[in-house]
Amino acid sequence: MDFRSDNVTGAAPAITAALAAAAAGTAAPYGADPWTDRLTARLAAVFETEVAVFPVVTGTAANALALAQLVPPFGAVICHEDSHINTDECGAPEMFTGGAKLVAVPGGAGRLDPAAVDAAIRRTGYRKVHRVRPAAVSVTQATECGTVYTVEQVAAVADVCRRHGLALHMDGARFANAVAALGCAPADLTWRAGVDVLCLGATKSGAWAAEAVVVFRPELATDIAERRKRAGHLLSKMRFVSAQLLAWLDDDLWLRHGAHANAMARRLGAGLAAVPGVTVPDPVEANMVFPVLPPGLAEGLRAAGVLFGDWPSEHADMVRFVTSFQSRPEDVDAVVARARDLAVAPAGA
Amino acid sequence: MDFRSDNVTGAAPAITAALAAAAAGTAAPYGADPWTDRLTARLAAVFETEVAVFPVVTGTAANALALAQLVPPFGAVICHEDSHINTDECGAPEMFTGGAKLVAVPGGAGRLDPAAVDAAIRRTGYRKVHRVRPAAVSVTQATECGTVYTVEQVAAVADVCRRHGLALHMDGARFANAVAALGCAPADLTWRAGVDVLCLGATKSGAWAAEAVVVFRPELATDIAERRKRAGHLLSKMRFVSAQLLAWLDDDLWLRHGAHANAMARRLGAGLAAVPGVTVPDPVEANMVFPVLPPGLAEGLRAAGVLFGDWPSEHADMVRFVTSFQSRPEDVDAVVARARDLAVAPAGA
Amino acid sequence: MDFRSDNVTGAAPAITAALAAAAAGTAAPYGADPWTDRLTARLAAVFETEVAVFPVVTGTAANALALAQLVPPFGAVICHEDSHINTDECGAPEMFTGGAKLVAVPGGAGRLDPAAVDAAIRRTGYRKVHRVRPAAVSVTQATECGTVYTVEQVAAVADVCRRHGLALHMDGARFANAVAALGCAPADLTWRAGVDVLCLGATKSGAWAAEAVVVFRPELATDIAERRKRAGHLLSKMRFVSAQLLAWLDDDLWLRHGAHANAMARRLGAGLAAVPGVTVPDPVEANMVFPVLPPGLAEGLRAAGVLFGDWPSEHADMVRFVTSFQSRPEDVDAVVARARDLAVAPAGA
Amino acid sequence: MDFRSDNVTGAAPAITAALAAAAAGTAAPYGADPWTDRLTARLAAVFETEVAVFPVVTGTAANALALAQLVPPFGAVICHEDSHINTDECGAPEMFTGGAKLVAVPGGAGRLDPAAVDAAIRRTGYRKVHRVRPAAVSVTQATECGTVYTVEQVAAVADVCRRHGLALHMDGARFANAVAALGCAPADLTWRAGVDVLCLGATKSGAWAAEAVVVFRPELATDIAERRKRAGHLLSKMRFVSAQLLAWLDDDLWLRHGAHANAMARRLGAGLAAVPGVTVPDPVEANMVFPVLPPGLAEGLRAAGVLFGDWPSEHADMVRFVTSFQSRPEDVDAVVARARDLAVAPAGA
Repeated sequence: MDFRSDNVTGAAPAITAALAAAAAGTAAPYGADPWTDRLTARLAAVFETEVAVFPVVTGTAANALALAQLVPPFGAVICHEDSHINTDECGAPEMFTGGAKLVAVPGGAGRLDPAAVDAAIRRTGYRKVHRVRPAAVSVTQATECGTVYTVEQVAAVADVCRRHGLALHMDGARFANAVAALGCAPADLTWRAGVDVLCLGATKSGAWAAEAVVVFRPELATDIAERRKRAGHLLSKMRFVSAQLLAWLDDDLWLRHGAHANAMARRLGAGLAAVPGVTVPDPVEANMVFPVLPPGLAEGLRAAGVLFGDWPSEHADMVRFVTSFQSRPEDVDAVVARARDLAVAPAGA
Repeated sequence: MDFRSDNVTGAAPAITAALAAAAAGTAAPYGADPWTDRLTARLAAVFETEVAVFPVVTGTAANALALAQLVPPFGAVICHEDSHINTDECGAPEMFTGGAKLVAVPGGAGRLDPAAVDAAIRRTGYRKVHRVRPAAVSVTQATECGTVYTVEQVAAVADVCRRHGLALHMDGARFANAVAALGCAPADLTWRAGVDVLCLGATKSGAWAAEAVVVFRPELATDIAERRKRAGHLLSKMRFVSAQLLAWLDDDLWLRHGAHANAMARRLGAGLAAVPGVTVPDPVEANMVFPVLPPGLAEGLRAAGVLFGDWPSEHADMVRFVTSFQSRPEDVDAVVARARDLAVAPAGA
Repeated sequence: MDFRSDNVTGAAPAITAALAAAAAGTAAPYGADPWTDRLTARLAAVFETEVAVFPVVTGTAANALALAQLVPPFGAVICHEDSHINTDECGAPEMFTGGAKLVAVPGGAGRLDPAAVDAAIRRTGYRKVHRVRPAAVSVTQATECGTVYTVEQVAAVADVCRRHGLALHMDGARFANAVAALGCAPADLTWRAGVDVLCLGATKSGAWAAEAVVVFRPELATDIAERRKRAGHLLSKMRFVSAQLLAWLDDDLWLRHGAHANAMARRLGAGLAAVPGVTVPDPVEANMVFPVLPPGLAEGLRAAGVLFGDWPSEHADMVRFVTSFQSRPEDVDAVVARARDLAVAPAGA
Repeated sequence: MDFRSDNVTGAAPAITAALAAAAAGTAAPYGADPWTDRLTARLAAVFETEVAVFPVVTGTAANALALAQLVPPFGAVICHEDSHINTDECGAPEMFTGGAKLVAVPGGAGRLDPAAVDAAIRRTGYRKVHRVRPAAVSVTQATECGTVYTVEQVAAVADVCRRHGLALHMDGARFANAVAALGCAPADLTWRAGVDVLCLGATKSGAWAAEAVVVFRPELATDIAERRKRAGHLLSKMRFVSAQLLAWLDDDLWLRHGAHANAMARRLGAGLAAVPGVTVPDPVEANMVFPVLPPGLAEGLRAAGVLFGDWPSEHADMVRFVTSFQSRPEDVDAVVARARDLAVAPAGA
C-alpha cells in the first residue's frame, strides 16, 4: 500500500509491451525516427492544432527547456510559491535560462490568482533595467495541491499574460489527471485558453520516463532543439521515449489512467474525511489527498505498512497520499479502515 | 544493412527483458531503489574499488556532469579537437560548467599526445587571472577515430595531469569496445592508470538509454547529485536506468557486445581494405571503420541499400561504418562483396 | 535641491584631487600597483585584521562577485525581500553565481529577522537534492529602508548562519553611514560579529565609482580574482579605483561623509514629521527618509524644484529622500519650510 | 622607460580636467545624464550614422556584452586564435553569452583570413543541433600583433559573415591607432565595411577607464541595457565614463593620441630593426613592436631600466614593446641606443 507518490510505480503493461515491440531493428537516431513522427502527428490530433513536440525523460527537463525558450537570462517567471519549478527542481529553470528569476506568488489551493499575477508583474517590471523583465507565467495543472484550474481559471491567467505581453507555460506533469477531472477537450484547457507551451507528463501516469514539450505557437520553438541537445536531453534512441508516449495516448490510456487515479483519490479522501479527527482541507480534484491527521495516526498507519509522505505546511500534521494508475480500491479501503480503527482505539489507549 | 552508427539500434533482448521484470511493483524514487543500490555494488566489483555512481540517460549528460564537477566556470578542459565533447554536444560542457573553455588539441588517430597536452596546459595557464585555469583533461576511450588508448597511453596522459594538478576524465561511450579490444581489467584502464571519472556508456552497446558517471575518488563527487537534479537528469523512476545497466553487466554481456562489434568492424575493415581503390588509413581497433572510397563507390553502396555516414576530414571521400552488438557477419560480408563488385565494374562503366 | 539618491552626486573634491595626483607616471596594471597595495594595508588597519581586497566600480559587481564566491550554482542566498540584490541588480547575483536562487524573506524596517532566516534555511534545505542548497545569508547595512542593524542584530543573524554552516555577506553600499550612525568600530560591525565578506561602497559617499569586496576569511577568496577578470571588472588601470578609496579613507573622510549625510537626513526627517499630514513610519537612522505625504504635497514640492523619488510600498504615497555628503542644511530647511507652507495652504485651496 | 603596455599609463591631462569639471553638481544616474546624451550624439557624428552607445569601464566588458547580444548560449564566435577575447579575458565571452563557444582560427600577422573564416563557419555549422550555431565573427582592430586590417580586409571578412548570416564584431581596444594608421573615415572602417558592433576603447589611449559599445544597427541593441546592468557595468555615476569619452573625442584628441603612439612605435621598430641581431618579423602598423632579440639583449635592456613584456610565440625570444599617447621620442631613442650598445658589446664579452 504505497501512496508516497505516483512516481513510485513502474510502467504500465501496455507501455512495457510497446518498448519491447520497438526494440528490434534500426532507426535513424536523435528523433528522426518513425515513432517520433507519429507522436507529433498524434499530439496534433489530440490538441486539434499544429504543434512542435520535443520528447524528453523528465518533467524538470521539459519545464526548464520550455522556460529557457520563453524567458531571457535577465527575465522573470511568475509562478506559485509551491510550484514544482520553484521548490523541487534544484534550480533547473535558473540553470537552463541562464539565471532568470522565479518570482514566487502565494495563492489558495495551489492556484495562481490572476490579480496576484498582475500585481507581481507590475512590481517586478516596475524599474526597467534595474529589475528583471517579466517574461512568462507558469501554472501547474493539476496543481501541487491536488486541485485543478478550470478552463476559465486558466483563461483568466492567460488574459493577464496577454495584457503584459508575457507567455504562458503549463507544467502538465499531471495533465492527464486534470483533463480527466474536468472532462474537457485538451485544446480547451491549453491553447484555446491561452497556453503557449505545455509540458505534458506521462511518467507519473504509467510511463518509465516520458514527457513532451508541446509548443502551440511554432514561432516559440526556435531554440528548443539546440537547447535540448545542449542539456543532454536529446536521446540518440529517441524512439524509446516516443514509443512510450504513443502507447500512453493509444486508446485513451492516458485518460483512463488519469480517471482511475482520480477516482481512487476521491475514494480515499472521502473515506479519510469521515474518520474522526481527520480533516481534508483542500478539495480532492485530481490524484492527491492532503489530510491533516490527529496525533499518532500517521505513526499507526505506517506501522501497518501504509506508505505516504509528510507534507510540511501551515498545518503541522498534514501528510500526502498520491494515487496512481495502479492503485487498487481494496488497498484504498484498507487504508481507510485501518485509519478508522486507529482513530477509534488509538495506540496506547 | 545499417552501419550509420551504433545508436541506430534498439535494445538487446536481455535488456528488454530486464525492463519488463522491473516494471511491476513500487520502489522509492530518485535512485533510492534496490536496482540502483545493486548497480553501485556491481560497478565497485567490476572496477575493484569503491565508486560513486550516477546513472543518466545520455553520454552528453554524463560527460557534462562529470566536467562540471571537475572544472570551475573560469576553468579549461584540454581535449582532442575531434572529441565528442568538443564537436557533438552543442556546448553541453560549456552549459553545465557555467562557461568553461574547451581547449582543443590535435592528435594522431584520435588520441591525445601527452606532450601536446602538456604544452596546451602551459600555454593556457600562462597568464594567471587573464586566462582560464586548466582544470581537467578529457580522453575518449575508444576514440572518435575508432582507435583505443593502451593502458600505458592513458597513464602517460594521467602523468601530465598529475604534474599540473589536473583531473582526468574519460568519455567511455564505447568503453566496452575498448576493454574488449585490450583484454585488460577495467580497473587497469581507468583508476589504476590515473583516471578520476569515467563516463560509462551502455546506450551504444545494447541499452535503450543508460550511462553512468563513475567517480573513482569519492571526494570528487560532492556536487554531482545536485547538478544532476538541476540538469533534469535525476529520473524519478531511476530503477529503469539502473536495471538496464545491471542487465548489461550481467554475465559480461557488455564485454560480449563489445567483442562482437569489434570483430565485425575488423572483418569489415579487412574486407574493404582489400577492395581495389579503397584505403583504410586508421587502424580498426574498436567498432568503427573509416574507409576512403574511390569515386562513385559510396553512391553505389547506398543505391544497394547499405547505410553509413559521410565523414568530412582531410580525406575528401572518407566515410564511417559503425558496427554494433547486433551486426551480422553475413551483412558485413555482403557489404564487402558489393563494394568489390562495384569497384571492379563501376556504375556507368 | 536634489534628494533623488546619493548617486546623483559627482565626486568629492578630495577624491578629484587624488585622481589628478594619480594620473601621472606609469604603474603596473591590473592591481599590481602601489595604490592597490596601500589600499589593502589601509583596510587591514581599518578593520584590525588581515583582509583580501578586490576593488571594483559598482556595488552590483561587488555583491555579485562576493556571492559567486560563497554560493554554488545550485545554492541559495537568504535575503530580505527588499534587498538591493533581490530587486535592483537585474539578476546579477543569478548571473555571477551561475543561476543560484535568492530566497526573499520579509522583515520589518528593512532588517532580516533571525528567526525568519532560520525558518527560510530550514524550508529551503528541507528536501536535499530537490531544493537548492542554502549557502549564504545577505544583510544590507545600512538597510534599503534607511535603518541600521546594531552589532547585536548582525551577530544574531550570524549566529543562525553558523548553526547551519552558511556564510554571511554584508552589502555595505552605505556602510559608512551605518558606522557613523552606530559609532562603533568597523571590526565590531563586521567580522567580529560574524560577517565573512563585506562589500564596502564609496560611490554613494563621494567617490566616482569605487567599491571594494573585503574578505575577512582568506580561504573564502580563492576564486574572486578570476571571477572579477571574467566579469570584466578587473580594471587595467586599477590605481584609478584604489586611489579613490584611499582618498575616501584618508582622514576619516568616509566617516565624516557618513555622519554629515546622516545628520542631514535626521534634520529632514524631523522637520517633515512635524508637518501637518506627513508621517515618517520608519526611524531615520542613516541617510534616507521615507515620508508618507498627504495628497498633493509631492506635486507641490516638485513644482517648487525639489527632487525626490516615488517609493511604492504598502503606503500608497510614500516617497524617498536621500541625503549625501554634499547636502546642505539650508536646502534641507528650505524643503521642510516649503512642505509646511504647502500643507497649511494646499494648492488649489 | 615603460613599454610594458599602453595600460601602464594614467590619464591624459585633458581627461583629468574633464573629470574635475564634471564632478560638481547633481545629475540623473545610470546614464540619464547630459554627458551621456552628448556622447551618443558625438559618436553619431563621428561615425556619420545613428548609433546606440553603451559606455562601460573595460574592454573585456564591452566585448562580452556585445557578443552576448549577438550570440546565443548555443552559438559560436569565430575569432583569431590570438584574439584578446580568446586568450586574455578569462572566459568573459563564455560567461556573458551563457556558454557560447569561441572557435579559434589561426591567421597571419594577427588577422583573420576570410577563407579560413568561411571554412570554420562551414565546419562548425556542419551538424545542426549537435554542433554550436555559428553566430558572429570577431576581428580586432588594430590586431593583437600590432597590425591593422585595411578597409578592404574588413569588408572581405564582412562578406563572409553576410553570406552565412553572421554578425560582425570589432574589438576596437586600439581602434584609434587603426584609424590614425589608415587615415580613413571611422565609418568606412566599420559599418560601411560591414561591422555591426564596435567596442571602442579609450582606456589604452589616455582615459582612466572608458570604453563604449557602439551598435550600428539599432535592432541589435535590444538587450544590452539589461545585460549591462546585470553584469554590474551600469555605473550609477555614468557621467564619469561619458565625460572621459567626450574629452577623448574633443578636438580629435583620440586621433592625435593614436597617431603619436603609432609614430613612436614605428620609430622604435625601425631603430631596433637596425640593431645587429635584432629582427622585427611583423610590420609595425599601430603602436606595438614585437622584436626578436638576440641572446642576452632582453636582460641587458631590463638591467638598464627599460620595461617591456615577454611574448611567447613561435619565436622563442620575441618580446613586446607598446607605445602610448605619452611615449617620448627621447625615450624611444634611448632604448634603441642602449640596444645598439649592448648588441655591439654584449654583457660579459
